[in-house]
Amino acid sequence: MALTDAVARVRALTFDVFGTVVDWRGSILRELEAFGREKGIAADWAAFTDAWRGLYQPKLSLVREGKRPWTILDVLHRESLEELLQRFKIAGLSEEEKDFLNRVWHRLDPWPDSVPGLKRLHAKYPLATLSNGNVALMVNLARHSGLPWDAILGAEVTRHYKPLPECYRITAELLGVAPGQCMLVAAHNSDLVAASQVGYRTAFIARPAEYGPHQQFDFKAEHSFDVVAKDMVDLAAQLAC
Amino acid sequence: MALTDAVARVRALTFDVFGTVVDWRGSILRELEAFGREKGIAADWAAFTDAWRGLYQPKLSLVREGKRPWTILDVLHRESLEELLQRFKIAGLSEEEKDFLNRVWHRLDPWPDSVPGLKRLHAKYPLATLSNGNVALMVNLARHSGLPWDAILGAEVTRHYKPLPECYRITAELLGVAPGQCMLVAAHNSDLVAASQVGYRTAFIARPAEYGPHQQFDFKAEHSFDVVAKDMVDLAAQLAC
Repeated sequence: MALTDAVARVRALTFDVFGTVVDWRGSILRELEAFGREKGIAADWAAFTDAWRGLYQPKLSLVREGKRPWTILDVLHRESLEELLQRFKIAGLSEEEKDFLNRVWHRLDPWPDSVPGLKRLHAKYPLATLSNGNVALMVNLARHSGLPWDAILGAEVTRHYKPLPECYRITAELLGVAPGQCMLVAAHNSDLVAASQVGYRTAFIARPAEYGPHQQFDFKAEHSFDVVAKDMVDLAAQLAC
Repeated sequence: MALTDAVARVRALTFDVFGTVVDWRGSILRELEAFGREKGIAADWAAFTDAWRGLYQPKLSLVREGKRPWTILDVLHRESLEELLQRFKIAGLSEEEKDFLNRVWHRLDPWPDSVPGLKRLHAKYPLATLSNGNVALMVNLARHSGLPWDAILGAEVTRHYKPLPECYRITAELLGVAPGQCMLVAAHNSDLVAASQVGYRTAFIARPAEYGPHQQFDFKAEHSFDVVAKDMVDLAAQLAC
């Protein structure tokens, strides 16, 4: 397939990770259910999982708006976990157990097409994360399933959470390329729109199962992105990898 | 081999790169000689190579001391290149040729033991660069020879050049571990001493050919580092990888 001129100028690919590369909801739900069985704790683990992710944007907003100092996602996840343990009336967990639960975010499984697709893309392009996850979380996710990143960039190294423009702009700068030579790959329309506003090229991959039965948007590309792919392997094919 | 308690607590390995992982002098000399032959330019390319590296510390010092704003190594290398082209009376190079020459720093070859050793270490530990090289340079070096880094950290993401303590301290923080859970692997006594002063564990590998016939120091470990290894494969063996 012929690349457009804009896409042919791309020198590096950057990736949203939660939802785009890894299946956070399915992974967390499986782990929480297994934990509940093992410890004899009954709870609506699906509701717990959704509520945990539900606290994500409100927590990030406080940092983005300068209402609290820079705080990494691991710490925000842990605060949310404490709130939800109270809300779901789960008491008596040890510090070790809570740390184990919080680190489920470091053990998320990829969508089945992610690793094969990324390996093909990696043969042609440098690949970097452009996620709100912190560096250690991203490193552990990559080691968990062999995600072939060349660099871990995004929120923690830029000290700005997406969708603030600095997060995208500084990530491109660290890769040594102009924003127009960077492509963001994401399953979220809003992320791609924000990236395009600083000059990034864009690739949308629908992940209609990301939010399970509760998914309300991002079923399809709602803007004219440079590439719309069925999955990561299709993206590799469309980019002639 | 049994690990000491301090070494058993290590959770991440960080690496000096120029000299420790890659043979900058041999690589640059080979490329400059080939460039000279191809373009019909006669020069003392060994002296040119040594002078290029010789300008490294003075340039970094100005940034470290706050006498010039943050500047990445690619830009400092390019300034030095311009000075040396004048000094060696090499005129008439195009912008494209100068950029090609400057990017020789992105194409340095590893020592023969580096990739096999790093692959073994990578199976057990997360590996990160802790170099003064900028992110794009490190990414290109890794892609040039398959260095299995999990993250590119060090100077550019911390905005501090080694041996400033912040460079080591923030790198550990980004890896999500205490300095005492980080080990720096380096061929330079002074780098390891600076890392140890912020609490890092240390591994010395002698690279007696790094500076060619002009090497004056770093033939051996001059302090009581945690590990002294013959090369990267020996380091893997000593760390029970």
